[in-house]
Order: sequence, then C-alpha cells, then structure tokens
Amino acid sequence: MASKKFLIIGGDAAGMSAAAKARRRDPELEIEALERGGFVSYAACGIPYFISGEVKNLDDLIVVTPEEFEKKRGIRVRLHHRAEKIEPEKKLVIARNLETDQLLELPYDDLLIAAGAAPIVPAGMDLSLPGVFTVRGLGKTRELKEFIAADSPREVLIVGGGYIGLEMAEALAGLGLKVQMTKLTPREMLALEEEVSEEIIRELSDNGVELTIGAGAEKIERDPAGRLKIALSNGEERIADLVIVAAGVRPESGLARQAGLELGEKGAIKVDRRQRTSADRVYAAGDCAEAYHRILKRNAYIPLALTANRQGRVAGTNVTGGEEEFAGMQGSAVTRVFELTAARTGLGLKEAADAGFDAEKVYVKSNSRAHYFPGSRTIHTVLIVEQKTGRLLGAQMAGRDGVAQRINLFALAAAQGMSVSELKDADLAYAPPFSPVFDPVLQAAEVSAKKIR
Amino acid sequence: MASKKFLIIGGDAAGMSAAAKARRRDPELEIEALERGGFVSYAACGIPYFISGEVKNLDDLIVVTPEEFEKKRGIRVRLHHRAEKIEPEKKLVIARNLETDQLLELPYDDLLIAAGAAPIVPAGMDLSLPGVFTVRGLGKTRELKEFIAADSPREVLIVGGGYIGLEMAEALAGLGLKVQMTKLTPREMLALEEEVSEEIIRELSDNGVELTIGAGAEKIERDPAGRLKIALSNGEERIADLVIVAAGVRPESGLARQAGLELGEKGAIKVDRRQRTSADRVYAAGDCAEAYHRILKRNAYIPLALTANRQGRVAGTNVTGGEEEFAGMQGSAVTRVFELTAARTGLGLKEAADAGFDAEKVYVKSNSRAHYFPGSRTIHTVLIVEQKTGRLLGAQMAGRDGVAQRINLFALAAAQGMSVSELKDADLAYAPPFSPVFDPVLQAAEVSAKKIR
Repeated sequence: MASKKFLIIGGDAAGMSAAAKARRRDPELEIEALERGGFVSYAACGIPYFISGEVKNLDDLIVVTPEEFEKKRGIRVRLHHRAEKIEPEKKLVIARNLETDQLLELPYDDLLIAAGAAPIVPAGMDLSLPGVFTVRGLGKTRELKEFIAADSPREVLIVGGGYIGLEMAEALAGLGLKVQMTKLTPREMLALEEEVSEEIIRELSDNGVELTIGAGAEKIERDPAGRLKIALSNGEERIADLVIVAAGVRPESGLARQAGLELGEKGAIKVDRRQRTSADRVYAAGDCAEAYHRILKRNAYIPLALTANRQGRVAGTNVTGGEEEFAGMQGSAVTRVFELTAARTGLGLKEAADAGFDAEKVYVKSNSRAHYFPGSRTIHTVLIVEQKTGRLLGAQMAGRDGVAQRINLFALAAAQGMSVSELKDADLAYAPPFSPVFDPVLQAAEVSAKKIR
Repeated sequence: MASKKFLIIGGDAAGMSAAAKARRRDPELEIEALERGGFVSYAACGIPYFISGEVKNLDDLIVVTPEEFEKKRGIRVRLHHRAEKIEPEKKLVIARNLETDQLLELPYDDLLIAAGAAPIVPAGMDLSLPGVFTVRGLGKTRELKEFIAADSPREVLIVGGGYIGLEMAEALAGLGLKVQMTKLTPREMLALEEEVSEEIIRELSDNGVELTIGAGAEKIERDPAGRLKIALSNGEERIADLVIVAAGVRPESGLARQAGLELGEKGAIKVDRRQRTSADRVYAAGDCAEAYHRILKRNAYIPLALTANRQGRVAGTNVTGGEEEFAGMQGSAVTRVFELTAARTGLGLKEAADAGFDAEKVYVKSNSRAHYFPGSRTIHTVLIVEQKTGRLLGAQMAGRDGVAQRINLFALAAAQGMSVSELKDADLAYAPPFSPVFDPVLQAAEVSAKKIR
C-alpha cells in the first residue's frame, strides 16, 4: 500500500509544527512542505532584534533548517515554491517553482494551509521604491539590514503602531536613526485601553520618537534631493530615508477563497477546533486561519506565534488519526517598547461590550517591588471585569519592571473563569526584590473586587 | 454605652493589619496594640537589604509609624510593652512596661495574639557574646549594622540555610565579608527538592560562600585572639568575627499555651479559618498561629508575610462583626540568593506523600527567553503532580532570569486544582525578550502531562 501524503502550504511556525508533529506520530507518512521564501521554521518575532543588533546573526533566528527537516525527519521541504491553486475535489495543489518558473501538480491525501499573514500595505505605499520595506520573512529582513548598512539612513518613518511598528521603532532608534511614526489611532492594532496606550506614547516620546496620531500614510515618492517624501492623510508631509510599513496584517487566505473554502473572521480561513476547513481533508492553521477564543467562546482572528505553533500541532495530530482540539487562545501578548513593557490578555472594554458582557474597567497603579526596594517602578494595570459576577474578562498592563510574567497570571485567571474576588486571595510568592507583600496583581484584583461589589 | 476594646499583642504585620482593618470598619472601637520592641508595622523581610546597603535607611522599612497609627487612625500603640500573661476568663492581659518595669492590667473585649515567631537558637549559641546575632526586629538590626560598621568583621558564620540565612549570606558577601555557612541538610527549612537546592548550593559556592552541609553549631566561645570560635556537630571548628543564627523560627505561642489555649501544628496557636482560637473572643494571626493550607485542606505552620497580613485583616474584620474566613495559603515563597532566584509553591514530593497523595516529581530545564535572545538563562523547574489525575500539587523553580513571577502561575494553577494537561494549554503572552514561544511554565506542564499519562 502506498503511503498517504500530507502536503503543507507554508513553512513557518504552523506548517512546520504540523509536519514535525505528524512525523512523530507516523514514521511512514509522506510529508511535503511548500515555502515560497528561502527559509522555513524561523522566529519571525525575533526580526526586530536582528535589525537592532541584539541578535547577531540572521541564522540565529532559524529554529530548524530545511536540511534537518529533510535528512533527520524525512520531511520534504520545497523552498521557493509558491502554491498557486488548490483543487480540493481533485486533492491537488498547483505550485510554481519560483526559481525555474516551472508549474508542478502536487497531489495530497491531507492538505494543511499555513500560508501565514501578509502585511497590509496602504494604497500609495510603493514597495518597489528603494528604502521602503515591510517586515516579513528573513529574506526581506536581510535586505533591510543591508540597506541600513549600505545607505546609512538618518531618518525613518514607521507607518503603523502595532507590535512590529513599536519594536522596529526601538530597534532603529537604537541604531541612531531619528524615528518618526504615524498611526491612525492611539490604540490601533494593540487595541489597548488608553491608560496603557498612553504609557506607550509617553515612552516613545521620551525616547525621541516623533509620533503623529490620527494620520495614515497616503503617498510616497522620491523628492528632488533623493529622499523619500510621504504624504499623510492629515495633509502633512514627512521626509525620511527609510520607510517601514507596519500597518497590520491580513490573513493569506486568497488561495483558500479561490478554492471555495469558507472564510470567517476578518477574512481568515474558517476552521473548527480540529483545524478542519469547510473542504474535506483540508486543514488550516496559524496566521491565515481563525482561532478559537476561550473567553469569547467562538472563533476570532488574532494572529500570534503561540497559537500558530499549537494549531499546527493540532493539525499534525489530526491528519495522523488523532482527535485533538485546539484548546483556545485569548489574545495574550506582550511587547517591549524601549524600557517599557506593555501586555494584554483577554478582552478589552469594547470587545467585552461587543460580546454582550456588562463589563467595567478598573485602573490601578502599584509598585513593582517593595516600596523601599531599589528599582521599584510603577505598574499600570487595567482590568476588564464582568459587573454581575466579578469575573475577570481581560487585563492590560504597562510598566518598566515585572510586567511580562504578571500578565500571565491574569491570563490564567481569565481562562479559568475566576472572579477578581477569588484572584485577590491567591497565595503569591513575595520577596522585596520582586514585589510588594500584596503583589500588583493582587492589588488590582482587590481594588476591582471592591468596585464591583 | 462604653465602646468595646480590641487589644492586640504584637505590633507587626498581623497585629497592625488587624488594627487598621478594624478601625476602617468601626470608627468607635477602642484599639490598643502592645509591642515589646521600639517599632511597629515594619518590613521584616527587608532587613537583609538594609544590612547590604541596598536599602539606605532603617526608617525606609517602616510602613506606618506609631504616631500615624495614634494620630491619624486613633489606634493606641504601646511600644516597649511586653505581654506577660493572658487571662481569658477575666478577659485581661497583664503587660510589663519594659522601660519602667511597671505591670499593667489591660482588659479587653476581643484579643488578638499576633506575637510573631522567634528565632530558634540552638543550645550553646550564646547570644550575649558580642558579635553573635539573630535576625529579628529593627532594634537588633540597627545593632548589627552598627557592629559591622564599628568592628569591621572579616569573616561571618551563618548558622542555618533558610531564607534569612541565604539572604544574609548575600548581604554580607556584598559588604566584602568572607561568608561561611553551616546547615543541617541540603534542603533544611526551604524544604526544596534537590534539583532546586543544588542550584542554591552552586550559587553559594560560585560566590565564595564556604558551605558545610550536615553540621549544626554546638558551642560558641571567644578564642584567645578575641575572635569567635564555633564548634560544629561534625567535630570541626570555625573561626569568625560575626555569627548570624538563622536556624529557623518557632511560633511565639508561650503565652497562649500558659493561658490554656490549644496549640496545633508545630506548636503554633490553633485557629479556625476566622482566626478564632480555642478561647472565647481570643484570636490569633500571623507567625504565631497556624494557617489554613489550600492544597492540604487543613491547617499547617508556614510563617510568611502575606499570610500574616491577611490573617490580621480577617481577625480585624471578625472582631468588628464581620464573618470572614482566611482564604488559605499554600507556602508560596521566593528568595534571591546572589544572582539566583529560588521559589516554591504548594507541596514538595515528601509533603505530598505524607498527605496521602500518589505523587510524582518531574524535573524540566528550559530557557528563560527565546533561544537566540541575549540574557536567556536556564530555568530549573520541578513539578509535583498527582499521578492519577495529573493535578498540580506543587512547583519549585530556580534560575537567574524570570523565576519570581513564573512561580505564581504554578501557584494559581495549583490553587485552582488544575491538571498539568490543562496548564500546558494556557495562552501565555510571548515576546523574545521575555520567554520562548512555549514558556518554561508550559514546557514543564507539557513534559509532566506526557510522563503522567
């Protein structure tokens, strides 16, 4: 009996997690991954830190090389191959070898679409102009690094203020560039409550970033002096030597749509918790797909690395006869912006209201360490709490000490359906270098519990 | 009608938390606190950091002054007053004014015993010798600081390796003293699993601490050269200019015992979850009392600051007509030992077995940050898991990056009765400066889930 074939479109977190998982469960399965770029299984989240120089080598961002997949795990990796058409009835994918321009017909028994997300490029942003970049993939990252080294840009304009925009602002400021940033709203993609987003805005300003809020970038051209001239939607103009377009991402669901697969939230591929799409034996995972949201108890589109890895594993389990469900995500995320850490989990106030919760927002400031201990900094915490029950629906934090792991306590509490009254009684470990006796998490829960009562 | 009187023995965390809580709930109540030392409401946990110089002024460790209690809150504070007898039938406490030697009869309607814990002083440790200290209270702390300044001791012997011993080792090494430490077992008071205690031992050794394991201190005397000579139980001898006796603590329950109150775990005052003792309208809270243990579902004696504060509040609520129960503790604790952080929550393997759990220990090493990110260090995690159910019973961690807040995720999971299978699916926030995609907490839970299955 010929072995079954598992074909994967996309060779990053979701795709290669699925491949690795499937291989561990089935040594016989034929596994093949198509990747249109020159790298698979790389740490996309590390790109800003390679640009900044904190990570020295681009290769450091590669988790597993194509050779390791092929030789050690027997997973065929076709680099520079772009899937061009999916034919679910024929169980066939048509792909183009981008190096030879040759078309291939690749049959499958099970297909996983893990095509990722693509940067949203506002109309008028001409990516063909030298010095205009998006942040995507290691190939483009190398080009950006080389551009900076060769052209020594003095000023950069970052279009968009999401995670990637913020992290690139820090990275480029660290290289000595004068950083300008323009974003549509103070909250934009992070969708943070204003108490937290104000801290980000202050941190950007304190670090010399010139921030324009309420303006998109509409047009980009080369001025007579050879610099980039960007027209903003508020009528202003910016001059820069480098433009980073980081205005959010959209799911790469075009092939799926053309193949007649159902799309869901924000155009992402509709999946069930086993990562099955509407087409027989076609799965989707990662940034191109929806994901089950634990608090909303329905699918949502919040592309994040941990979700991609997990959905890939679930798909890999299920194509090899397993029956695993994706446990769920809740939009937990953290980012470093210069010295500030901003983090979130669960629902914001508007999200909670949109989902039908009668929710309240509670804002608490506390010290990160014992009041007398050096290095104690203010932690800003916003909790979103269901009024009737006191149930924690979401949390957001900003601070310069001890934020990154604390948000995860709120994440766990929200996932468990805990009320702030229960959370305020948690027995947390205390020592003066790490927290006050009543940890900021406990303080925020206690203040919330009193307000809700 | 004359107002009721709430008398409190002991003016630190538990006692003054009770006083403050009672005052907030009842503006009329007469509240009086007896404190045999010269300070109330101070941060005992900060003492090592005053000795090290990280905390500059002793006053910085004072949370609320006696004057503030008296003038702002109408709480009478009698400093230098030692309770000498409790007469529950007469609702009377006899106290001695240590400055005038005068005896006072103090009647009460409700009494709280919050006398704290006393250092265990092994026989042969002569505290009257200059240069021999325990760590207790701000008065003694000032004496120790002055002794160090005046006598410039070159070598110190620390007797005992619990939190205080470890923190004092770090503090005194930081001042340039050569540190020797002797302790009975590798685990001793922290009762850590060996995978974690070995990291502490390595850290002590890497920082020049000469550690003797398996020996107590039996005798101390001044040698002919005027230095302190300490005989160890293994027959060896140590020479030092300073001796810190930090061999654990015992509950200050003598007065309660004499008054006929029932004692419980390890001689601590027996209390119910409302902090009531066996005597009518006599409460106990803090380091002199037992505390309800969430995982064991019975009382235990694990004196810690957060528990003391909370039990005090519960007592203060209940003496003012409330009906509050102490929610419980689970022995969550963290300590910094030079660059290492060690932390625990819940049960160790032996504790779990003693409590009748069929438990397994799982040890996992992981990186604190993305593998390519600078500053990533190894985190050592030990999970104690119930075999049958996979329920998390306890966790211990050691590492040089990101341990202090992570232990609290395990604390919350154990308190919630979560299984490691549930915990491994938690949606935690990820960014390369703070964690790998799969956080050490998730990795430890996942490895445990596989082992248990």
